[in-house]
Amino acid sequence: MKAAFLKKAGLLSLEEVARPVCPEDMVLVNVKEIGVCGSDLHYFNEGRIGDHIVTSPHILGHEAAGIVVEVGKRTRGFSIGDRVSIEPGVPCMACEHCREGHYNLCADVHFTGAPPYQGMFCELHVHDPRFVYRIPDSVSFTQAALAEPLSVAHNAVRRAGLVPGETALIIGAGPIGFSCIEMARVAGASRVIVSEPVAFRRDVALKVGANHALDPAAGSLPDFVRELTDGRMCDCVFEASGSDLGIADALRCVRRGGRVVYIGMGKEMVGIPHSDILKREITISGIYRYVNDFRPVIDLLSAGKLDAEIWVSHRFPLDRICEAIAVANDPAAKALKVMVTT
Amino acid sequence: MKAAFLKKAGLLSLEEVARPVCPEDMVLVNVKEIGVCGSDLHYFNEGRIGDHIVTSPHILGHEAAGIVVEVGKRTRGFSIGDRVSIEPGVPCMACEHCREGHYNLCADVHFTGAPPYQGMFCELHVHDPRFVYRIPDSVSFTQAALAEPLSVAHNAVRRAGLVPGETALIIGAGPIGFSCIEMARVAGASRVIVSEPVAFRRDVALKVGANHALDPAAGSLPDFVRELTDGRMCDCVFEASGSDLGIADALRCVRRGGRVVYIGMGKEMVGIPHSDILKREITISGIYRYVNDFRPVIDLLSAGKLDAEIWVSHRFPLDRICEAIAVANDPAAKALKVMVTT
Amino acid sequence: MKAAFLKKAGLLSLEEVARPVCPEDMVLVNVKEIGVCGSDLHYFNEGRIGDHIVTSPHILGHEAAGIVVEVGKRTRGFSIGDRVSIEPGVPCMACEHCREGHYNLCADVHFTGAPPYQGMFCELHVHDPRFVYRIPDSVSFTQAALAEPLSVAHNAVRRAGLVPGETALIIGAGPIGFSCIEMARVAGASRVIVSEPVAFRRDVALKVGANHALDPAAGSLPDFVRELTDGRMCDCVFEASGSDLGIADALRCVRRGGRVVYIGMGKEMVGIPHSDILKREITISGIYRYVNDFRPVIDLLSAGKLDAEIWVSHRFPLDRICEAIAVANDPAAKALKVMVTT
Amino acid sequence: MKAAFLKKAGLLSLEEVARPVCPEDMVLVNVKEIGVCGSDLHYFNEGRIGDHIVTSPHILGHEAAGIVVEVGKRTRGFSIGDRVSIEPGVPCMACEHCREGHYNLCADVHFTGAPPYQGMFCELHVHDPRFVYRIPDSVSFTQAALAEPLSVAHNAVRRAGLVPGETALIIGAGPIGFSCIEMARVAGASRVIVSEPVAFRRDVALKVGANHALDPAAGSLPDFVRELTDGRMCDCVFEASGSDLGIADALRCVRRGGRVVYIGMGKEMVGIPHSDILKREITISGIYRYVNDFRPVIDLLSAGKLDAEIWVSHRFPLDRICEAIAVANDPAAKALKVMVTT
Repeated sequence: MKAAFLKKAGLLSLEEVARPVCPEDMVLVNVKEIGVCGSDLHYFNEGRIGDHIVTSPHILGHEAAGIVVEVGKRTRGFSIGDRVSIEPGVPCMACEHCREGHYNLCADVHFTGAPPYQGMFCELHVHDPRFVYRIPDSVSFTQAALAEPLSVAHNAVRRAGLVPGETALIIGAGPIGFSCIEMARVAGASRVIVSEPVAFRRDVALKVGANHALDPAAGSLPDFVRELTDGRMCDCVFEASGSDLGIADALRCVRRGGRVVYIGMGKEMVGIPHSDILKREITISGIYRYVNDFRPVIDLLSAGKLDAEIWVSHRFPLDRICEAIAVANDPAAKALKVMVTT
Repeated sequence: MKAAFLKKAGLLSLEEVARPVCPEDMVLVNVKEIGVCGSDLHYFNEGRIGDHIVTSPHILGHEAAGIVVEVGKRTRGFSIGDRVSIEPGVPCMACEHCREGHYNLCADVHFTGAPPYQGMFCELHVHDPRFVYRIPDSVSFTQAALAEPLSVAHNAVRRAGLVPGETALIIGAGPIGFSCIEMARVAGASRVIVSEPVAFRRDVALKVGANHALDPAAGSLPDFVRELTDGRMCDCVFEASGSDLGIADALRCVRRGGRVVYIGMGKEMVGIPHSDILKREITISGIYRYVNDFRPVIDLLSAGKLDAEIWVSHRFPLDRICEAIAVANDPAAKALKVMVTT
Repeated sequence: MKAAFLKKAGLLSLEEVARPVCPEDMVLVNVKEIGVCGSDLHYFNEGRIGDHIVTSPHILGHEAAGIVVEVGKRTRGFSIGDRVSIEPGVPCMACEHCREGHYNLCADVHFTGAPPYQGMFCELHVHDPRFVYRIPDSVSFTQAALAEPLSVAHNAVRRAGLVPGETALIIGAGPIGFSCIEMARVAGASRVIVSEPVAFRRDVALKVGANHALDPAAGSLPDFVRELTDGRMCDCVFEASGSDLGIADALRCVRRGGRVVYIGMGKEMVGIPHSDILKREITISGIYRYVNDFRPVIDLLSAGKLDAEIWVSHRFPLDRICEAIAVANDPAAKALKVMVTT
Repeated sequence: MKAAFLKKAGLLSLEEVARPVCPEDMVLVNVKEIGVCGSDLHYFNEGRIGDHIVTSPHILGHEAAGIVVEVGKRTRGFSIGDRVSIEPGVPCMACEHCREGHYNLCADVHFTGAPPYQGMFCELHVHDPRFVYRIPDSVSFTQAALAEPLSVAHNAVRRAGLVPGETALIIGAGPIGFSCIEMARVAGASRVIVSEPVAFRRDVALKVGANHALDPAAGSLPDFVRELTDGRMCDCVFEASGSDLGIADALRCVRRGGRVVYIGMGKEMVGIPHSDILKREITISGIYRYVNDFRPVIDLLSAGKLDAEIWVSHRFPLDRICEAIAVANDPAAKALKVMVTT
């Protein structure tokens, strides 16, 4: 099969390798679409993310969907030909986090695409069937691959405890921000406000379903939000930019007693208006990936309640993955989500 | 002004009475539309509900919207001409339930329309402005009056903790059931199943947004649900029928670890499959009216996310209120929600 | 080793069998103490509980503690000689309940002592190390075995969300009721009331830490509670009797907005005052065993915050297990918790 | 009556003023004991806290208990001679925060002792009876006055959702830290760790009930905690120092999926290790005073479950209030909590 190997930072090479063997308790999936994520770019550009270092030829890619082409003989619940979405992290299911239902916090997770675990910018991938989800024909491979960022947003909206009729602010209009717009709308937010400094992203945010798209560079975001909400501010704020200003402004834009959800990874140390947390009894939740979120996301895609396609800007075949990476890397290309197809 | 007085069980009389005086900390509202609720029928038919007994001429009606025609001189936030929805219960705001944010559990609530507190089947009504909500022009008086049953459903969905992508079962397709269908859909249920023995009500339920409408008289509801959900059963069950079978089946149709919400008032003693609560660790929440639900409901109506008009079947002017009550009382009339207009 | 086999209802036979082999991912435990549970008596008396039927010679017993005598070569975290408490249920860790952190709801749980899974009225037992907990020397084997019922109570108090300073009512003073008294006290209940018709059990309840012990046969429990609480009733009610009256009275003794936890298994159908659930917005939680509760219970035992020994009434060596069962079965014996030692 | 007036920063003057008149819906309390709080010192030293500025002679003091000496004629539930604890903040009970049960977030709260509302360093004080709590003879006036900081801790432990058997870390051993130690112990923490740089405060922390008292100046607090907890870190961290290091270390000392509660007010902008919030899915709650916490705290004091007296270091009569303030202000005096008595 063909697979795209990162040899070292900046060097990606498409190679032919042996077809993987499907162990008896696994499924083998013919990958059809894979999204390019910011972390893929980070590995490509830097050769590492924190302690995860690319030391040998490494396949990136963890947002994927495909077709089951082989079913291990002890695997139940799958047939050849099943169209599926893949949850990339496979936890140990033995530690106390796994037993408590927070398997995303498992220290021994095998996360597809994060070294040393090979990813899915390739044609065939072996996966644990507990973390593979069948999709109906009405859900596209694109949507099924983007169940990954949508699951991050599902985790965020779930942790926020968003109740129908509340006002949501989403800071940052990238794929996670778009996912949060969709999910806040689905959860019944009566108003979704977006903050994003890049004009064309604000336009997309409105198409995705935001009611207002604000430019934080044009003034004070808290003041803009105060005006839009008659001084009431927002019930829930989803920080998806990871910027210093976004992280601080999130705390300034939330209502007394409201909830802030931090999703975007920022710098190691960030300054925050700490006394706001106290005076207004803010609840803050940090989000790390997703946990038990794929199934409801796929049910929402199946019910036609989520779109995702609208924020896909580019598609490249696997043969042209270097181009896909270059476009995703280049601000001038105005890429939103770039998909790779096999 | 004109007002409809219940003289005794079965005898309603429209009379001309003095215009109410607006105290300085109140607002006076010209009532435009009022819904006929099951409890109004109960008072009309029996002259009482439990300890609430009609002993002197009594005005019923507690689902109302109208226009502010006088603003007490110490009242802030309202102007003459404001279109408004009225939350009928005015609690003491001093007891521990009120202080804990559960003012619906206040033992000293003044509930509009429940004896001895006069209701709103009349032209003018004085109300506490803390429980009056301005509505935009895009929200009809019908919708604003039906914010009352919709708030019951908002309370129910909020207490259930319904998360986007979950499956909801609603037992009973009357106005509260319809409200629950709308609210479960708004909260992101990927699938809404309804159980209702009356055929034309099942048809309306589908129009309101249910995905499936089952007839519990045609077999075993738990079996029907098991088949529809591939054995998984429902994450949340909303019991809005108050029937013995509905109350018991609610516990049989919910998923392990799922939530049952009891809304429909049934008989004093009801038999339930108690061991199901244990074996499947069901969480059950009882719902009594609403608390802090009117504002989000009106925001959802303003955002066009709720409809309510679709389950209004009849409209009568206040002059013909006896006809309105008769229609609402007569199963052959196939009434859903009957509105009275002034 | 010696093991006590239930041959058929009423017939228990102590036999010598081969020493179990310890698989490489397991631990072999020399069982030191085992509690006799109501379900053991049920199996002994009836030969079955629901669908769990004793068809071949069966070892009962699931409340146990002991010493590790062999460690599988792939097992980590244990050494020979470790004193341990055993959580009897071993779930699949693959189904959605397991992944959601509710492994007690797993349909494929291997529950030690429930047919077809052999129990621990024997000298040696092989167990999955993920569900074995080391205990310090300060915790007795009795306490470590009774971590099982204490974990049920921990689950109950956790689900109730008991907050320091609240009033708790515990219905039924058997081992689960005693466990709930201890746990409610540990969780900061400012007042623990017990309802129990048997006088000597009420006496023990007071020794275990209850502030009041009421006799429900002497009058109306709700009236007694109303008087004790100045009409406020209880914040949390723990039903551990499984009796029809207890199940109904639980709903009558709880405060508006309060929480009822059902722990005691009763008859298939039970009559409840349903309208109380609505009018007072009661939240009810069903409890099934325990989930992630053993570790905190053992930490509480280690910290000297729980006792358990106080409600142990009898101890018998394994050789005299028939006597142990007989005593536990005989109301005249005034047994509380009967322990079997090896 | 005598009252201590702050004339300007640093100048306190004891004066004789007219006895207050008791309005018909109020109670008049003869104040017996009042605690000196850090905020009192702040007003004394700076003449202001933020927007709250002392512009005219002002009585400080908001931690108080006393005896009812007059009952307004419309006031119910109190008699002359009642011993009482006073909750200092009286909210509007009309805004949406009050209606939602978060009256501590009310923008129109009348907070006793915060300008322009006169405080309780005086002999007689008029208070709203909804925020006055009767205490039994077994609770001392000192304890009843310190129900105020204990209520802050109750709010913190409640928001943290501390479950019996968890490990708690408390950063900062002042009166709020001591209150948190007591409350975490009462809520069933199996282990309470304290971090405090001042040696004599660490000694008191151990007496109050902490299991370990660490010096954060002696090394890395996260490392100390890691060692004490076998790498597991703490389930709940209560930050009561307001220091930059404490605020940041709180996030480093909490377990994956754990909860951090911020109580201590720090600088306007504080640097935090933001990515920890995400990677470990930390939940952070800000605490502002208390809400519905006084009653359970008084019930806990009545039950003998809280002490508070142990961390009172000095007592002065009202005549010597300048001395009381001086001692509380002077680190060399080693004051913990200073009480003023009338």
